[in-house]
Amino acid sequence: MDQSLCMNGGEGRASYAQNSFVQKQVMSRAMPALQETLRELYLDSFPECLKSADLGCSSGPNALLFLREMIDSIDAIRKKLNKTEPAFQIFLNDLFDNDFNNLIRSIPSFYEELRREKGGDFGPCFIAAMPGNFYGRLFPDHSLHFIHSSYSVHWRSQVPVNLVSEFGSPLNKGHIYLARITPKSVYEAYLDLFNRDMIVFLKSRSEELVLGGSMMFTMIGRDASVNLSEDQVSNIWELLGRTISDMVQEGIIEEEKLDDCNMPFYLPTPEEVRYVIQKEGSFDITRFETFKVTWDAEMGDGDLQMRGKYAAATVRAVSESILTTHFGEEVMDGLFERFASKVSQYMKLHKGEYFNILVSVKNRWISTLMQSS
Amino acid sequence: MDQSLCMNGGEGRASYAQNSFVQKQVMSRAMPALQETLRELYLDSFPECLKSADLGCSSGPNALLFLREMIDSIDAIRKKLNKTEPAFQIFLNDLFDNDFNNLIRSIPSFYEELRREKGGDFGPCFIAAMPGNFYGRLFPDHSLHFIHSSYSVHWRSQVPVNLVSEFGSPLNKGHIYLARITPKSVYEAYLDLFNRDMIVFLKSRSEELVLGGSMMFTMIGRDASVNLSEDQVSNIWELLGRTISDMVQEGIIEEEKLDDCNMPFYLPTPEEVRYVIQKEGSFDITRFETFKVTWDAEMGDGDLQMRGKYAAATVRAVSESILTTHFGEEVMDGLFERFASKVSQYMKLHKGEYFNILVSVKNRWISTLMQSS
Repeated sequence: MDQSLCMNGGEGRASYAQNSFVQKQVMSRAMPALQETLRELYLDSFPECLKSADLGCSSGPNALLFLREMIDSIDAIRKKLNKTEPAFQIFLNDLFDNDFNNLIRSIPSFYEELRREKGGDFGPCFIAAMPGNFYGRLFPDHSLHFIHSSYSVHWRSQVPVNLVSEFGSPLNKGHIYLARITPKSVYEAYLDLFNRDMIVFLKSRSEELVLGGSMMFTMIGRDASVNLSEDQVSNIWELLGRTISDMVQEGIIEEEKLDDCNMPFYLPTPEEVRYVIQKEGSFDITRFETFKVTWDAEMGDGDLQMRGKYAAATVRAVSESILTTHFGEEVMDGLFERFASKVSQYMKLHKGEYFNILVSVKNRWISTLMQSS
Repeated sequence: MDQSLCMNGGEGRASYAQNSFVQKQVMSRAMPALQETLRELYLDSFPECLKSADLGCSSGPNALLFLREMIDSIDAIRKKLNKTEPAFQIFLNDLFDNDFNNLIRSIPSFYEELRREKGGDFGPCFIAAMPGNFYGRLFPDHSLHFIHSSYSVHWRSQVPVNLVSEFGSPLNKGHIYLARITPKSVYEAYLDLFNRDMIVFLKSRSEELVLGGSMMFTMIGRDASVNLSEDQVSNIWELLGRTISDMVQEGIIEEEKLDDCNMPFYLPTPEEVRYVIQKEGSFDITRFETFKVTWDAEMGDGDLQMRGKYAAATVRAVSESILTTHFGEEVMDGLFERFASKVSQYMKLHKGEYFNILVSVKNRWISTLMQSS
């Protein structure tokens, strides 16, 4: 994953910074749960310095959104209780290739805004960047009170390795991710990787959190309870795969390249998420919700073509780095123009939606004590 | 300072990454003192996770040099004592405009090298970036065991504000820093700023270090005991000022721009450093050394023109961002060509040297306990 997965950097037209309204919608829908989780955490321990991490923060306007919400939430509770303001140490995490310069240069105005709005009545806030892969350890033992991650945990540590038959031919021909007609072996390879990744993720976070510390994450999942009609896709990536397939037909992209391309994410069902958390065993689930956000970030009934472009730009910002290594930079503009139009057509007939899973968990005291003994 | 002070980014011809051999020399000369300081620190407390910070790390090959030396030093001691390997959490600090992308992208190969050389017999190492101004707080109370800073503390928080007469005319005409014939008021303005900056610096670090924690820093100073001959300069910046002055004579640079330009650093005498540490009062001095490194990073008796170029490139890498805001990008190449030649001429007659001050201090238990009570 580390090699080619990163959100588009900078502030340009195709950048993640300019095309992350879906992620912003998701964060705003998750706010009440975040506030409640933080409230419980604060009332549990009243830390003098609340140490937290945001995993997969990327860069752009959303990156500091969680921080502000966290600070405001804690500030509101402690004022009500007439407690002195705690200090905050916050680690913003993403992979090594993330645009950290862009992220870090937005911090001074964040501090400035805090000072202006909160005045002197506010504890110090120390924002650090922690680069690295969250499928592994990132922080010392028991050094954090809270871990947050929005729209990152669906990314896998790699592409499943076993997506070729015993004769070496690709198993997921014509697709870039699971589609309606994907062979069972492909689905199983993805699910197996998801389970292994999540075990590492949960174990690492459990070791990094203090006893009783909390974690909340949102991720894209899939709603297995819905029966799709004949002309529906199971996810937006299936439409992107079809667009690439069209370009293979047109002779613009080689068929082998499409057959070899599989995206490194997995959209689990709520049951799959519950199962792996319980199986890993370090955490108690304190909150489990699902909610939907449309592919165009709830733009409403606007111009359909515009909404398609918008949805396509969101996908481009998060997948271009990977697709470029597979298909070359020269086909990207053409690919995403066609994709935008395909998304528009689809949204004429169906409501294209991301199905999101939100989970809050609490580090189990007993298991953690046993681990460290 | 935050606005225009940053080392030249990237990996190009004029970058700090390519022109930081003086800094590397200084670090290598400081190694024995660093090893001894770390040894004492480790034997004092045997921390399970050694938390440290490197202030003003910049980017490029030197940025991770301190880390490696620290890890190797601790590893050697703990092996001798048959102790299990500690974990390391290390914060690399510099101003918000530093090239953190370059720095962060060099971390994976650093981890890889560690794994290769140390094998499994080694504790985890977590490298974070902490952007911000070290003339102020950067870390939570008592959260670090060790703070290191190489060649950064001579930078001031700003240019002294009182470098104009009561009639508004510049006091440091024809120079960009203290020179042999600078008025006393200019010297006093710089010294006053140095004292105020250092009080904030020392107080902040003392609050961030654990009780008994240590700090070691090296900085450029000046040797007040030397009597300069008529044709000697007091520092390399005086030569740079003369070069700019030549360009004023040639009509390339406006005189007002030179008169208004004053560099935001101060090169103190050893006595001035001792005085401010004792005055601030949080630290006991455990080591105080001085040593010299030639402007060309000890190149030896090579081609004089080459050595001049080399010395000039070092100065360019650390000062171009500031000089560009004063004089414009278009004169930089011309300025540093002339400067290189002036440095060569000077080195024909005199040994151009940086005079360096190395200080190790230990957080005083009593004062710290009183602060936190």
